[in-house]
Amino acid sequence: MPEFFNVLPPAQALQGLLELLPRSPLAGESVAVADALGRITAAPLTAPEDLPAFPRSAMDGFSLRAADTFGASEGLPAYFSLVGEVPMGMDAAVSVGLGEAAVAYTGGMLAGHADAVVMVENTQPVDAVTIEVVRPVAPGENVVQPGEDVRAGEPLLPAGHLLRPQDLGGLTALGITRITVARRPKVAILAMGDEVVAPESIPSPGQIRDVNSYTVAAQVRQAGGIPILLGIAPDDYGTQLAAAGRGLEQADVLVCSAGSSVSSRDLTADLINGLGEPGVLVHGLSLRPGKPAIVGLVGGKPAFGLPGNPVSAMIVFDLLVRPVLYHLCGCTAPPEPATVAARLTQDIASAPGREDYIPVRLFTQGNGPEEERLAEPVFGKSNLIYTLIRADGLVLAPLDQAGLYAGERVAVRLF
Amino acid sequence: MPEFFNVLPPAQALQGLLELLPRSPLAGESVAVADALGRITAAPLTAPEDLPAFPRSAMDGFSLRAADTFGASEGLPAYFSLVGEVPMGMDAAVSVGLGEAAVAYTGGMLAGHADAVVMVENTQPVDAVTIEVVRPVAPGENVVQPGEDVRAGEPLLPAGHLLRPQDLGGLTALGITRITVARRPKVAILAMGDEVVAPESIPSPGQIRDVNSYTVAAQVRQAGGIPILLGIAPDDYGTQLAAAGRGLEQADVLVCSAGSSVSSRDLTADLINGLGEPGVLVHGLSLRPGKPAIVGLVGGKPAFGLPGNPVSAMIVFDLLVRPVLYHLCGCTAPPEPATVAARLTQDIASAPGREDYIPVRLFTQGNGPEEERLAEPVFGKSNLIYTLIRADGLVLAPLDQAGLYAGERVAVRLF
Repeated sequence: MPEFFNVLPPAQALQGLLELLPRSPLAGESVAVADALGRITAAPLTAPEDLPAFPRSAMDGFSLRAADTFGASEGLPAYFSLVGEVPMGMDAAVSVGLGEAAVAYTGGMLAGHADAVVMVENTQPVDAVTIEVVRPVAPGENVVQPGEDVRAGEPLLPAGHLLRPQDLGGLTALGITRITVARRPKVAILAMGDEVVAPESIPSPGQIRDVNSYTVAAQVRQAGGIPILLGIAPDDYGTQLAAAGRGLEQADVLVCSAGSSVSSRDLTADLINGLGEPGVLVHGLSLRPGKPAIVGLVGGKPAFGLPGNPVSAMIVFDLLVRPVLYHLCGCTAPPEPATVAARLTQDIASAPGREDYIPVRLFTQGNGPEEERLAEPVFGKSNLIYTLIRADGLVLAPLDQAGLYAGERVAVRLF
Repeated sequence: MPEFFNVLPPAQALQGLLELLPRSPLAGESVAVADALGRITAAPLTAPEDLPAFPRSAMDGFSLRAADTFGASEGLPAYFSLVGEVPMGMDAAVSVGLGEAAVAYTGGMLAGHADAVVMVENTQPVDAVTIEVVRPVAPGENVVQPGEDVRAGEPLLPAGHLLRPQDLGGLTALGITRITVARRPKVAILAMGDEVVAPESIPSPGQIRDVNSYTVAAQVRQAGGIPILLGIAPDDYGTQLAAAGRGLEQADVLVCSAGSSVSSRDLTADLINGLGEPGVLVHGLSLRPGKPAIVGLVGGKPAFGLPGNPVSAMIVFDLLVRPVLYHLCGCTAPPEPATVAARLTQDIASAPGREDYIPVRLFTQGNGPEEERLAEPVFGKSNLIYTLIRADGLVLAPLDQAGLYAGERVAVRLF
């Protein structure tokens, strides 16, 4: 099995694959902006109009001509005649001239010819139609100018942008209610192995229930994709080839998970090579857990062989499959995994030349300003799914380091 | 408007509300484990059986009795007769006696009476039916024992647990294919204001399109809830009361967003008081942006008045509404917002006694080990939605600090 020693760091394996893929090959589809959360823009968007479209008051107070407040102070107030108000949501029916002011509400329009708003706190009523202003305002003060939020023709969002709540609001503000986004990538998932049975089954001695179809499908959903479960294929080349081929036809990406024995790894490599050209690109990662992963390409579609053990499969998915799904949608900057800082409770050994991901449990110690977050390694064989369930996240011992030390501050990738 | 000076820190306002709410009042519902990603467990779960159910080999090699390898070395190997193999997914049809071994595959079952596995790398074939073993193994070495992942009767997940991909896999591994989770909380959203029109409309001068219904609905979805859009009500007490009342009937939580003028704030407080007892609990937060927020309770259901400006509304949602939605599902530890560490490019002023959230744009500078992430404040009036769209996250200037300094390392809450 010489190919297993020809291993690549995960980032390099990913880069090699991405370079062979077209950028954003998935077609766009039109969706309602209200339903577009988490989708990825298929084209850049430009503002069709100014936002706001009219000069809006940023304060409750009085709109007036700033020049008329010049020199106003507590000792020498400026006097203004009230000529009316501009109610919320209404066009300005009044205009102000020299020494005149109109009542303004936060978010309401300025009176005609007004160029500033004086806050109500800087005024005093004199009588029903007169106020004094005790502080000068500059032109534009307390006013949101037309186009100040965004100007007609200005770029709003680039292509490949993952839509957040504020993006949706920014679009509805401009009257944009439908948008073209990348189609969700479809991921065909095939579990392989003579020992694997469906979760509904009672396993016979020697059999285990399928885990990876469900963890991987959930990871696909988290990355915005649509999982297609192909079920379980036994360790038979013809059966696997037929199932995987059907999967590749319907999907944009194929993910197989096989056992971790040498024979099932070899079967997976044969399978990906048998599906089409160029087949296997990378056979093995300098990663633990996750070393026996396979990265391939078949007729322009990425095909992955994940290790059978569920922890390895999840980590390889996260490092390789997830960024590929975003890439297919044209998103070059996938959302960063959530991390928290913590202090390690004990040394973690690692081998230089290999990335190690170590599950940790988080807890806090101390109180008030002394409170500190600690990360305690959850040791366990890497093939135990409950190791990950008992953990809150993963700590990375990087490629070029021989482990991490107790007391060291680390970034814990919440998982 | 004296109540606006009676402000509380956001965390204290939240705590006060949570203390008045029952823990996890939402009914449970049964869902397929395959569809349970992001849902919250309604009851604790216990392992129905041992995982794995049989002793599994963790390596490719030979299962045998560890005692028979005692003292084995390169110079003085121990010899074993091969009595067969245990194929993947099969019950062990062979047993090993003194000096006997059976072929074992990673994930396969041990032969009868075997208590350890010697890795193939530590063996040499002698002839077709004999191997030599050059390293001793301890009992249990390279074996996953029955129940080692999880033992029958052991707690699997507590109630109130947010289900991650690995949790789903851990459940299918044990044959659990349906699970009871908290019902998704329904959140009725009412936009209020004479100036607000639907996104499909062409606003007349003085009018603006609805933003908050869409940002808040997306935030509700992110928190696992179901948004119910009640539409837009003008600044008329009777109309608002009727719409909000209908919303509260169908939903678990009411969120109103009103204008930021003093009169619309007062209308919102009157509305929440008018809906039922106890009504308004907190009127104003020591928070910027977001000060004019209202926290209330009506007939046991949380009711929020969010400031009309979209940035304030989103921040108040994040700090108050989001944790309430998780609480209603019985989840006391909502997922932490994703943060990244960065260095501030410039000073940020803040007032002690107030939490300030400042939108920042992230970028990197330098290369290789010198590479550093920087956070540059996106200054802009807090009522401009595109301030948040141009930002990658928020930096908090805490309650007890008078600002942050250029060069300071800060945690940026990705937003």
